[in-house]
Amino acid sequence: MKTLTDRLYVRVAEVGNVCLGLDTDISYLPIDMQRRHSRPSDAVLTFNKAIIDATLDVTAVYKVQIAYYEALGLPGLDAYAKTLAYLRKKGAIVIADVKRGDIAKTAEMYAKAHFTGDFEADFITVNPYMGMDTLAPFYPYLEENDKGIFALAATSNPGACEIGGIKSADGESVCEKIAGMLAKENAAFPGENGYGRIGAVVGCTDKNGLAKMRALMPDIFFLIPGYGAQGGTAEDIRGCLKDGNGGVVNSSRGILLAWQKPENSGLSFDEAARAEVLRMREDIRSAV
Amino acid sequence: MKTLTDRLYVRVAEVGNVCLGLDTDISYLPIDMQRRHSRPSDAVLTFNKAIIDATLDVTAVYKVQIAYYEALGLPGLDAYAKTLAYLRKKGAIVIADVKRGDIAKTAEMYAKAHFTGDFEADFITVNPYMGMDTLAPFYPYLEENDKGIFALAATSNPGACEIGGIKSADGESVCEKIAGMLAKENAAFPGENGYGRIGAVVGCTDKNGLAKMRALMPDIFFLIPGYGAQGGTAEDIRGCLKDGNGGVVNSSRGILLAWQKPENSGLSFDEAARAEVLRMREDIRSAV
Repeated sequence: MKTLTDRLYVRVAEVGNVCLGLDTDISYLPIDMQRRHSRPSDAVLTFNKAIIDATLDVTAVYKVQIAYYEALGLPGLDAYAKTLAYLRKKGAIVIADVKRGDIAKTAEMYAKAHFTGDFEADFITVNPYMGMDTLAPFYPYLEENDKGIFALAATSNPGACEIGGIKSADGESVCEKIAGMLAKENAAFPGENGYGRIGAVVGCTDKNGLAKMRALMPDIFFLIPGYGAQGGTAEDIRGCLKDGNGGVVNSSRGILLAWQKPENSGLSFDEAARAEVLRMREDIRSAV
Repeated sequence: MKTLTDRLYVRVAEVGNVCLGLDTDISYLPIDMQRRHSRPSDAVLTFNKAIIDATLDVTAVYKVQIAYYEALGLPGLDAYAKTLAYLRKKGAIVIADVKRGDIAKTAEMYAKAHFTGDFEADFITVNPYMGMDTLAPFYPYLEENDKGIFALAATSNPGACEIGGIKSADGESVCEKIAGMLAKENAAFPGENGYGRIGAVVGCTDKNGLAKMRALMPDIFFLIPGYGAQGGTAEDIRGCLKDGNGGVVNSSRGILLAWQKPENSGLSFDEAARAEVLRMREDIRSAV
């Protein structure tokens, strides 16, 4: 059976590895656009739709970071729901970047919240720190609703190694232990193209770590943050893709704020976003 | 200066250690109450208000688990916001159990989301797995807005030790390492009663672990889940309180579903909730 992850694989083969992060802060919008709307959340939604329209044919997947919408309160979450709905209407694959993680009964609620109803997405990101039993409530949705998860394995922030990098007595780090656990869990959800329904978030700010992560999780699709603004390069990513597939590389600010770059002067914000997606796609293609 | 944590300390001294968890699932409501409302979220809000009214003078703090409201979509989050507002209007101290954790820029958004605006709470729970730099964006709010956080240290679920229990080369577990890091962070935010503005979530399903956690975090206020339905007892909690203070013990289903217990037949759901809070308070008092 073709799974959601298979569809993502095919999409990457067709249009490249770019994951466009809609971490839309109101300050990222051109000032006239901010002023044209009485509510920030309306401006954000208008901005998102224009970005989506301009990039749909060259973007593998969109990642919507819920924190930026929660920060605007109820109207923000309305804009979040409408952004997800717009993406789904357009046929795009959507990752809800929510990083939820809690005890089983609560995780059941998070699964219902983000795999059905107002906030329905295709994939969601989850935090596995509390143990693999906290991932289990998401599993029924993987097959029954054709959904997927990306679990945090190694993140891209400066302090990622503070806990993830703790070495256990047997020499493996916490991140590596989690990678091993995810590989085991994922074996129950195979796909046609070699990647299962459980993906992993693996930051590209640690090149050596990235190759190690790939070795530990050969059948796991990667969501790779840290490119661009956070310092990761296409070169860093090379070691964790297989024939250029098996992972998507996220950029948020780099794309949303492309209109502010001197080389894009004369382009509208959405044209500049498209130009940046194309540049990034080529950057990754030429490196891998 | 008296901090929020000092206020919580005084409240515990006055009314006991009960943290009432409003993890309100629609199925927890008496059937006639479910039927009386056309939207589940309205029924949940009505139920919450009645529970709050019946328990306000005997409850130290309320913990609202956002997952149950997210699961009801936008109307659910409206009920969440209204529950928080109702608690604040009544003068209660409120913990938003959101367990957010993300890279700094995103954590800034979560801080804004849950310390201001529609979803404003006093304390929020955070997941520190991604490193201490992901907690830093919450700090400006601690002093400027008199807020607090409870960071996950050792949770109460069956798989809590899968990652948290990994032993590092020096013999300390990941949970213990995190405890040490939190103790260090908390030193920057002291209070008058010996506990700082950074609290820790420490489950009571592992009695020995709990005493160890207290030893590692002597100046940290504990939010203790796992009592009752999850198997933890008042006896288990004893080792981590100091003169009966320094921690609150959460119960959610045990209180919300007290009306279904044979010993509470004849009581309304809110009267039963109050009876259970009183029973639990005495159970803890007599053990510590």
